[in-house]
Amino acid sequence: MINKLIEKIKKTHAPIVVGLDPMLNYVPEYIQKKAFAEYGETLEGAAEAIWQFNKAIVDATYDLIPAVKPQVAMYEQFGLEGMKAFKKTVDYCHEKDLVVIGDVKRGDIGSTSEAYAVGHLGKVQVGNNSFSGFDEDFATVNPYLGSDGIKPFIKVCKEENKGLFILVKTSNPSSGEFQDRMIDGRPLYEWVGERVSEWGKEHMGDSYSYIGAVVGATYPEQGKVLRKVMPKTFILVPGYGAQGGRGKDLVHFFNEDGLGAIINSSRGIIAAYKQEAYSGFGAENFADASRQAVLDMVADIDGALTAAK
Amino acid sequence: MINKLIEKIKKTHAPIVVGLDPMLNYVPEYIQKKAFAEYGETLEGAAEAIWQFNKAIVDATYDLIPAVKPQVAMYEQFGLEGMKAFKKTVDYCHEKDLVVIGDVKRGDIGSTSEAYAVGHLGKVQVGNNSFSGFDEDFATVNPYLGSDGIKPFIKVCKEENKGLFILVKTSNPSSGEFQDRMIDGRPLYEWVGERVSEWGKEHMGDSYSYIGAVVGATYPEQGKVLRKVMPKTFILVPGYGAQGGRGKDLVHFFNEDGLGAIINSSRGIIAAYKQEAYSGFGAENFADASRQAVLDMVADIDGALTAAK
Repeated sequence: MINKLIEKIKKTHAPIVVGLDPMLNYVPEYIQKKAFAEYGETLEGAAEAIWQFNKAIVDATYDLIPAVKPQVAMYEQFGLEGMKAFKKTVDYCHEKDLVVIGDVKRGDIGSTSEAYAVGHLGKVQVGNNSFSGFDEDFATVNPYLGSDGIKPFIKVCKEENKGLFILVKTSNPSSGEFQDRMIDGRPLYEWVGERVSEWGKEHMGDSYSYIGAVVGATYPEQGKVLRKVMPKTFILVPGYGAQGGRGKDLVHFFNEDGLGAIINSSRGIIAAYKQEAYSGFGAENFADASRQAVLDMVADIDGALTAAK
Repeated sequence: MINKLIEKIKKTHAPIVVGLDPMLNYVPEYIQKKAFAEYGETLEGAAEAIWQFNKAIVDATYDLIPAVKPQVAMYEQFGLEGMKAFKKTVDYCHEKDLVVIGDVKRGDIGSTSEAYAVGHLGKVQVGNNSFSGFDEDFATVNPYLGSDGIKPFIKVCKEENKGLFILVKTSNPSSGEFQDRMIDGRPLYEWVGERVSEWGKEHMGDSYSYIGAVVGATYPEQGKVLRKVMPKTFILVPGYGAQGGRGKDLVHFFNEDGLGAIINSSRGIIAAYKQEAYSGFGAENFADASRQAVLDMVADIDGALTAAK
């Protein structure tokens, strides 16, 4: 799957991923109204609204991008109905041949991580049949529990040709609270990065490992170091746009081959029509605003990468 | 909710929680067959089987125990149908007046943690209505992202009278890989424990905080230290039984008031009928075997606590 991701990045010239993290207040009122007219102001109505919102954005952007990253929390908040919308979104993105990164940040003790891995990336056995639960292509994983929380995910990735992005240095303001603590002269996130690189070495695609890392755009200096600690690791970089990251902050996340990183933007793309820069589109053309925001983001990153050469 | 948990522990004299973590191979064949006859060897069939299994165990044990801890991964592995069985289990346990600890180990950046908190512990707003998604009483949370991944959970707990158990030192063999690394002379888990204690101080029930911690039974020495680092923190202790922990390892997780800890057993209770000690019950009386295993576990812990006095 890492090979497919890289191939699609090369084809689209867009090392980006659109974060499908729909808050209900991102969804234009006319879509909410339509969904509520059909299903009432219920969890079902909310799920229908976010699904229609997602679908329109995917339809308007899928030819420009290699991948999407639905954040499962935004669906889980609507309970079972939300999870149905999550599944529908994953399946629809597959129909559009997009790589789907499930932003699930799971991680537990061995047997439990295996169940998560099976549910999100693999197949579960029921009698003589086997079934995919949610069937993403990649999943994000939390490393706090160490190797035996990670290895069951790696095992399933190997069997199913899928991949991981393991949290190394997260984009949020307080990520340093534990991740930056110094251990034998180096911050925790470097130790985690080193382990990710080791796990990755034995699990290689053609040029990069399918065991990737998450490093926030909001920490460019740390990204620079981690790029060197993990040379063959693909880095998923959240925090662009709404969280503060900009194209020029991102150049050091890439290798000299122009690859090695994929930049996520969520709100900045899916709620673009709410920003002043795209307000001309109007709420009814929100998906066109998202398309324009994708084009602008690609140009921003491409410009920064060109300037850095 | 921490007050209710403590009250129920006092009433049952059982500082234990039954982990409802049903693997399909724990479910007796006759239950599987019945479910598959009705729904086929499908995800729906598997979900029906684990739900019937859970229900029988809850029916056989609810009067002896204060709480249950369904591990959501075991349901997520069966996709949407599994999540329906999770929800049904949570709701049924509430009917039986059990405290439900959702073992979800969620944790993300601020806005995303808020969505998880809303989905598992709080209510989500849809138009003029609000709805509970999964409605557990407590949730387990991963601290790797620092304060801003935790605080949205705390906010929802405060509003909704719910609680958390934050991972401090986990029960798995490799938990030391990052958690034991020394920072300024103390292991990472102690620093995390200290933060949990601080977060907890401002969020107190009558005698303990509703911001609890997870510390594995498999690490009794560390538990002893953490008990002192977090005097007012309730500790959820997994790893008893199948993972290797025994009553005598657990005494230091408790305070002198006999409270402060709740010990989880999953496999050891729900798959008791598969152990030699309970094989006399037979598969058809699996729930009675679980009841006996609860009684034996309570006696084991009670004996250890009495001996330590």
